[in-house]
Amino acid sequence: MAAAAGVSITTVSDALNGKGRLPDATRRHVREVADRLGYRPSAAARTLRTGKSGLIGLTVTTYGDEPFTFTEFAYFAEMARAATSAALARGYALVILPATSRHDVWSNVALDGTVVIDPSDQDPVVSELVRQGLPVVSDGRPAGSLPVTAWVDNDHEAAVLGILDHLADAGARRIGLLTGTTTDTYTHLSTTAYLRWCERVGQDPVYEAYPAHDPCAGAVAADRLLARPDRPDAVYGLFDPNGTDLLAAARRYGLRVPDDLLLVCCSESTVYAHTEPPITTLSLKPRRIGTAVVQLLIDAIEGADSDRPVEQVIPTELIVRTSSQRRPPRTTVSPPRSPEKT
Amino acid sequence: MAAAAGVSITTVSDALNGKGRLPDATRRHVREVADRLGYRPSAAARTLRTGKSGLIGLTVTTYGDEPFTFTEFAYFAEMARAATSAALARGYALVILPATSRHDVWSNVALDGTVVIDPSDQDPVVSELVRQGLPVVSDGRPAGSLPVTAWVDNDHEAAVLGILDHLADAGARRIGLLTGTTTDTYTHLSTTAYLRWCERVGQDPVYEAYPAHDPCAGAVAADRLLARPDRPDAVYGLFDPNGTDLLAAARRYGLRVPDDLLLVCCSESTVYAHTEPPITTLSLKPRRIGTAVVQLLIDAIEGADSDRPVEQVIPTELIVRTSSQRRPPRTTVSPPRSPEKT
Repeated sequence: MAAAAGVSITTVSDALNGKGRLPDATRRHVREVADRLGYRPSAAARTLRTGKSGLIGLTVTTYGDEPFTFTEFAYFAEMARAATSAALARGYALVILPATSRHDVWSNVALDGTVVIDPSDQDPVVSELVRQGLPVVSDGRPAGSLPVTAWVDNDHEAAVLGILDHLADAGARRIGLLTGTTTDTYTHLSTTAYLRWCERVGQDPVYEAYPAHDPCAGAVAADRLLARPDRPDAVYGLFDPNGTDLLAAARRYGLRVPDDLLLVCCSESTVYAHTEPPITTLSLKPRRIGTAVVQLLIDAIEGADSDRPVEQVIPTELIVRTSSQRRPPRTTVSPPRSPEKT
Repeated sequence: MAAAAGVSITTVSDALNGKGRLPDATRRHVREVADRLGYRPSAAARTLRTGKSGLIGLTVTTYGDEPFTFTEFAYFAEMARAATSAALARGYALVILPATSRHDVWSNVALDGTVVIDPSDQDPVVSELVRQGLPVVSDGRPAGSLPVTAWVDNDHEAAVLGILDHLADAGARRIGLLTGTTTDTYTHLSTTAYLRWCERVGQDPVYEAYPAHDPCAGAVAADRLLARPDRPDAVYGLFDPNGTDLLAAARRYGLRVPDDLLLVCCSESTVYAHTEPPITTLSLKPRRIGTAVVQLLIDAIEGADSDRPVEQVIPTELIVRTSSQRRPPRTTVSPPRSPEKT
């Protein structure tokens, strides 16, 4: 470009960026040549100059280098959708990054900040981003001393205790848990809440843990849980596909839901309104979370004086369906009386 | 960094990139200093060097500089979700960009290629990207000579003709259309198919056009359409919210659906399975489209010899519900007989 215009690189740069003290004719000449050549300062060069890119990142890190197309799961898809809308509404582009650090993509994009979903307790991605001086907002409160700028989460302990009480109220005597093998706080807090509840009510824990990023492992773990000699009569599954995993396993063992087995799973999928029977689900409200993390991140990037607290707890919702409501035992002698008009 | 290590910038670069002929001691020294300083070559600098970023873009351009948070609409959200999964599965990050060219974001990210949804007939974004030598895959076949690398689309003409025949079969005598004011091929082809159908069957066209990116404009246009003296007795709405727009307008005018007014709209939303009455929808299969555009784009970026055709037509699906099925006229004299046990 400089050669074509017969000027120095500095002159090209000054002319195109409106800087320096150049004669108008030189500036005009450089611009004409740039136009003729279709020359534009490259995006990368511009990023180097301005220091801000208008790009924010989003990824899931807890599964480390395991391949994991997280947007296949309803929670992540809804959260990412809300995050995208929130970013676009404030003029930012959202970069959805592969979950693994293997890929070179991370080092090839100049992000102004990043949202990390479910960081593990010593997350290397979070540590590296913070070391680079970038704001990091986490979906999931960070364990230990993980140095995030802000976080948004649910109260997972309260949610799990609520579900266990709900199942006990419906008549469950031995409640099992399907949980994960990772160290993110969602998995960790939910599991310890379960163990604490068991201790409090004097029940032996009955649980199976599996790598939740593997779409097939849930079915195997559900099967294992229902094959145990101390088979539970109610199960809470922490992950999206666990409802259908457990329903399929129950069928294999000839267990009727909810008569022989009560079921609840954590899911955002509307599929569970239409299974046979419909399954009670816990919603973590990913849309609210996706919006909140992006608002906090952009506030941090722009150094805005915001009233938003940097630690936000979003309420969960238990959507009660047939699978967790045990019918009262039938009296075989006299038919139940109608509650109306007696 | 070079100053801290007491060497030249070239030596730093060679040492960190494993290039050049440096004594092992120098290389080791530079790496130690880099480690101590937490120095990493910046993402932008790295992009300049390698020429590939591992990033692909996705945006909607047809609404020009109108603010438009497109992921709020079911079609775009599902399409973006599938595109994200396809990109992640091949190790790419997906950058979802603001719809408008006003923002500086476009020039601040080094994309390897871009997916453009619904380009208008003289799309400046597409032209500029192609000028920069980047592959562009379009969701929506390009009008005229728009120079895209590949495209994926439905057969919108066939879909509209099928809907109009379906409505005529259900007894419609004057079919109206809710359409858009933009020049993208979806809007254009759907509208011309409607006009051609009207000409063929000898019906005067009855349509209202509105700016589809405006979430309120659809309700106003639906109202206008049903307020006309030549009020249609059936309507097809091209955009996602048109089902509820038209249902609300019908209620205001005391029109029963489907008895007085038959309705179909193009939507991916499951809302229409549960409206009163449920509304017949045309699905454009955005998940298949989102996957296909990203596969084609990455093939083009990687220069892969692929068997995939660069022009792909994805079948649509008409999901017939109550709103487009007119009940046979009741005989008021004798009550209908029970179909059972006669």
